Amino acid sequence: MAPKAPKFEIKTPKGTRDWSGADMVLREKIFKTITDVFKRHGGISIDTPVFELKEILAGKYGEDSKLIYDLADQGGELCSLRYDLTVPFARYLAMNKDITQIKRYHIAKVYRRDQPAVKKGRMREFYQCDFDIAGVYDPMIPDAEIIRIINEVFEGLGWHGKYTIKLNSRKILDGLFQVCGVPDHLIRPISSAVDKLDKMPWADVRKEMVEEKGLAPEVADKIGQYVLLKGQRDLLEKLQQDPALAANPSMQQGFSDLDLLFTYLEAFGALHTVSFDLSLARGLDYYTGVIYEVVTEGSAPAVPASEEAKEKVSKKKGGKPGDPDEDRSDDPTLGIGSVAAGGRYDNLVGMFSGKTQVPCVGISFGIDRIFSITQAAQKKKERKNEVDVFVMAFGGKDFNGLLKERSQVCARLWDAGIKAEFLYKVKPKLQNQFKAAEAGGVPFALILGEDELAQGKAKIKEMGLPEDHPLKEGELISLDNLIEEVQVRLARKQQLDSIALQAEGLKVVDGIKGEEVKAAAEAGQTAE
Amino acid sequence: MAPKAPKFEIKTPKGTRDWSGADMVLREKIFKTITDVFKRHGGISIDTPVFELKEILAGKYGEDSKLIYDLADQGGELCSLRYDLTVPFARYLAMNKDITQIKRYHIAKVYRRDQPAVKKGRMREFYQCDFDIAGVYDPMIPDAEIIRIINEVFEGLGWHGKYTIKLNSRKILDGLFQVCGVPDHLIRPISSAVDKLDKMPWADVRKEMVEEKGLAPEVADKIGQYVLLKGQRDLLEKLQQDPALAANPSMQQGFSDLDLLFTYLEAFGALHTVSFDLSLARGLDYYTGVIYEVVTEGSAPAVPASEEAKEKVSKKKGGKPGDPDEDRSDDPTLGIGSVAAGGRYDNLVGMFSGKTQVPCVGISFGIDRIFSITQAAQKKKERKNEVDVFVMAFGGKDFNGLLKERSQVCARLWDAGIKAEFLYKVKPKLQNQFKAAEAGGVPFALILGEDELAQGKAKIKEMGLPEDHPLKEGELISLDNLIEEVQVRLARKQQLDSIALQAEGLKVVDGIKGEEVKAAAEAGQTAE
Repeated sequence: MAPKAPKFEIKTPKGTRDWSGADMVLREKIFKTITDVFKRHGGISIDTPVFELKEILAGKYGEDSKLIYDLADQGGELCSLRYDLTVPFARYLAMNKDITQIKRYHIAKVYRRDQPAVKKGRMREFYQCDFDIAGVYDPMIPDAEIIRIINEVFEGLGWHGKYTIKLNSRKILDGLFQVCGVPDHLIRPISSAVDKLDKMPWADVRKEMVEEKGLAPEVADKIGQYVLLKGQRDLLEKLQQDPALAANPSMQQGFSDLDLLFTYLEAFGALHTVSFDLSLARGLDYYTGVIYEVVTEGSAPAVPASEEAKEKVSKKKGGKPGDPDEDRSDDPTLGIGSVAAGGRYDNLVGMFSGKTQVPCVGISFGIDRIFSITQAAQKKKERKNEVDVFVMAFGGKDFNGLLKERSQVCARLWDAGIKAEFLYKVKPKLQNQFKAAEAGGVPFALILGEDELAQGKAKIKEMGLPEDHPLKEGELISLDNLIEEVQVRLARKQQLDSIALQAEGLKVVDGIKGEEVKAAAEAGQTAE
Repeated sequence: MAPKAPKFEIKTPKGTRDWSGADMVLREKIFKTITDVFKRHGGISIDTPVFELKEILAGKYGEDSKLIYDLADQGGELCSLRYDLTVPFARYLAMNKDITQIKRYHIAKVYRRDQPAVKKGRMREFYQCDFDIAGVYDPMIPDAEIIRIINEVFEGLGWHGKYTIKLNSRKILDGLFQVCGVPDHLIRPISSAVDKLDKMPWADVRKEMVEEKGLAPEVADKIGQYVLLKGQRDLLEKLQQDPALAANPSMQQGFSDLDLLFTYLEAFGALHTVSFDLSLARGLDYYTGVIYEVVTEGSAPAVPASEEAKEKVSKKKGGKPGDPDEDRSDDPTLGIGSVAAGGRYDNLVGMFSGKTQVPCVGISFGIDRIFSITQAAQKKKERKNEVDVFVMAFGGKDFNGLLKERSQVCARLWDAGIKAEFLYKVKPKLQNQFKAAEAGGVPFALILGEDELAQGKAKIKEMGLPEDHPLKEGELISLDNLIEEVQVRLARKQQLDSIALQAEGLKVVDGIKGEEVKAAAEAGQTAE
């Protein structure tokens, strides 16, 4: 019956991975935290196909279009795997013209044939969690709520202020380039050079502008006076006092947007993590207003990606810097990158629908990167399953295994919604049953014995109690009250665990503030 | 700013669809019900890439391999979209040799280039929810638990016994064919002919066996004496008394399996929905033991797919029966099909790992079909979002819109984990705010007015109360106690809703029995 092993290597495709065990549990928790925030803000979920008609994606990603995965032509329509969730959302809005206002979220995988760096969470198949607000509203209110949402997500994940929301506006950038004298046709290329300031020193960026893009050196120097500036309202006020900038119409629009935005962010209590950063430009073409990117420790590369550094890395690896399949996890000139990014894109829906424009603003969270960082900070490994009770049996010489009784007890627990399992063995050893319960981290053992069963009883035992604990040996309970006896113990345990978690400050939270109080209060009252 | 509409049709690829609104909410509830059951049985979740190396899928799906979607060859590895979740699971086990026992679940989309029937939930991209138990255990215990899980899922979905778990064993089928005199090389083709008995009359199946597959007519007639039989233990006992059958070794193994299985199912309280059905054969090659398929009203076609019926349908549609892109939603010879299916497959992992065999048994739920049926039975439309409080403002002539105050109040609610929204308008009309709250089905309005704010108060109003309700006009609450005042009302409302749901018997449940009691008890104690 043993077939031969196949000749090819059994693996997942490059840049993809399986998720299982504690990783999967942690990722689910991250999803839950983010979804809770989205729902708290009235978000509704949509789901689109993993592939779109090839034409839908065409012309939306500029240079990066080469990273799109195509399906083979097997007859019928030509399709590609989605590259992000934003274009499918715009396509959805264009198809559903009755929807003129929506707050939608979408959690799904996207696909990019990029060079992977698996350990840094840079994958070819990866999850995005997007929240977007579409529709015509009074200016900057939804934009501010998006930034509030970013704060709630990272606070909810327990990052407690250890992140920065870099913020800029395409209108301000465009105005700035105009004032500095960048010719119109160079605005996008120069913008994308500026965007590299998070991983390259200014000298290298300037060199790219002048030598590669052909910008006049004095124009580059003018840009350099501005793009390294960072601040909040203070920076805005400083720019507003610059007569050359203040005279530019695009700049004026940008100023008025940010002025409103800062006011609203203050009311939302969401200003403290924002850094108005003139170097932020964002690669994608479709942004039209505010743009933002969330960075944290590790986002920037350990070593700036200067020309020398790049050369060193490629030499070390045997001079094959260009191999697109090579994993770059150990390349110090590559950081984790931003953990969330987004902005306002008012014209994308119109690219599909023709006349009907639906202005949008949104944020996309990069789950794999967030996972890598959260996991590194984690003190305790997650349990793999959630089983509450392991049903066991033991007996003497004529022990028949009590399989029927274990099955029946499990069935009663399942009927009541209690998570339970037992060993798939007719006559299991008690020791092996305990081993299995311990391996799964199951908190309670319910032990059936013939003598106890004859009296309608069984023993319940909390696992992992210290030697001197009064309940170390377990308690006899009546099987008539099985469900209540189990539920009361689960509730008590949950309450104690919750208090312990508070002490450790580890909880991935429900609300942002006061959640520990609430969790503890609930733990005392519900069984699950 | 208005770009031209593109020349191609804006749509999703054939056989795929977007999910949104009430559909999405209902589907999420179905996922939640199923996931809860899986977790209750100790299942742990895994996630695999949406595409696999082409070689992994090759040779696993027999004739249906032509339905596999390939990715285009863009350099690097050749990949295909996954066809099911079983083969990726086997590949995962073969890669992770340290995992010798696991109960895993996997909820994900799979892809088949099949002729779609969208209205019947037959899609090219569709969700499967799989639960599988892998490992060497005492015989038939995990097999029985899988069937118990099937029961819990459909009871949890509120189908209350309106489904049948058709059950058979590959060992019994093989034995039967041997006893009837089917030559070895015809066993699989004849088996797949028998499998069509759920959509074709026996006469047509017999014709296929004799005329297409070349089976001797007297052998076909012998088979006909058995394969229309259905029952439970009674049928097993009847077959056991047949000396010809009882002498066949494969049959003996099958008998002993089913005997054990029925015993265990009884202990699990999971026997009542099972129908031992000798016509069930299942298409896929990899099954080695028990097989099962869950059917319900609508699973079978409205009109049996006899030759005449097929001709009629194809004539009506203009004689193009073979167009693989044509949607078959309105074809009466096509039923919804089975809503879940699975069985034991002991050799699949070995096809990847070589020597190491990991026996498996599992079940796959077809979510899109389950969705179609659940939706048709639904009395009340789901709400699209989950917002609890709509924060509004109103005022007199000099009303400034109180945007700052609305933002601040929302921020407090969000801080406490309460779902809240407000209108993105600087000076909104009260009427428009109520309209928005009603459209979203939001249960509470929190209304800010300048006079009340001056006293540190605001009005909370439950939406949709009858005219004569004492609280119709709302209540003034102190903003100092905002969170507590809101939470107590949300809890009360949830409790009342839960009681109303019980009365309607509509609840998608947590446990199977007694869940209403639990839900009501919880509603009184927690805010969410």
